[in-house]
Amino acid sequence: MSDKDLNDLFLDTLKDIYYAEKQIYKSLPKMAKAAQSEQLRAAFEKHHGETEAQIERLEEVFELLGKPARGKKCDAIEGILDEGKEIMDEYKNTPALDAGLVAAAQAVEHYEISRYGTLKTWARQLDIKDAVKLLDQTLAEEKKTDETLTKLAMSAVNAEAA
Amino acid sequence: MSDKDLNDLFLDTLKDIYYAEKQIYKSLPKMAKAAQSEQLRAAFEKHHGETEAQIERLEEVFELLGKPARGKKCDAIEGILDEGKEIMDEYKNTPALDAGLVAAAQAVEHYEISRYGTLKTWARQLDIKDAVKLLDQTLAEEKKTDETLTKLAMSAVNAEAA
Repeated sequence: MSDKDLNDLFLDTLKDIYYAEKQIYKSLPKMAKAAQSEQLRAAFEKHHGETEAQIERLEEVFELLGKPARGKKCDAIEGILDEGKEIMDEYKNTPALDAGLVAAAQAVEHYEISRYGTLKTWARQLDIKDAVKLLDQTLAEEKKTDETLTKLAMSAVNAEAA
Repeated sequence: MSDKDLNDLFLDTLKDIYYAEKQIYKSLPKMAKAAQSEQLRAAFEKHHGETEAQIERLEEVFELLGKPARGKKCDAIEGILDEGKEIMDEYKNTPALDAGLVAAAQAVEHYEISRYGTLKTWARQLDIKDAVKLLDQTLAEEKKTDETLTKLAMSAVNAEAA
């Protein structure tokens, strides 16, 4: 029987999202470059900057735990981003490309929303107050990005594709 | 230049979530069996029944399109479910297992929420009214399941692990 507890699970999940954020940071410029509409490109560029700050916040959480900031391969984000790449290939130069890019980005956002929600709940149960604050800041940003993407999906981006 | 449009993207994404739902349907009994708390087991069992109905709804949407119901390998759900399996292995017999199972299930729910939200928006733009209704029904169920899991995460399940 393992003696792992919620502290270990918190650290493992922190490593998972740290890895994920770094992959997302690398993929956002590619998505911005692929975007056809100016609005969507701007949304991806803005989120690229936010992601940088989110990575720094995660490094602060590692520091609060007295652990080195290290990622752990996250199969979920690999799969989600692979689907995004597939869309970029298959829908290149088509009127549906932007709609597909928004959908791919929303799948990413929802993965992050679930992870940050989980980590925030656990940080509260483990009574790491400063971590709760940092995780909540990022969670709010991710939800806002998802809302921006929903608005884009409902407006110009997809109307063109239909 | 490809002549793909939003109709193709809608069908591709429908195949993606159809594959995903079938994988989720297979994994839920394993998660229910692994769960330590009665409440969590019950939540997984309830969602197993719901997933069956959700698969049938997707088959109705394929029918509305006049296309055979066929899945397409979804890398995202494979990665998300693999992370869940990892938790079940690494945290077996530990007080943090249920917390990990809830987190894994919420990652699944959020993937589904993003996909059904996207499909519903596209069905509306493509003016497939009956599909909008079917997709919205499932979207509401997924959001409710996510809320149930959040409540479980905040209550007994994780307090034990802390």
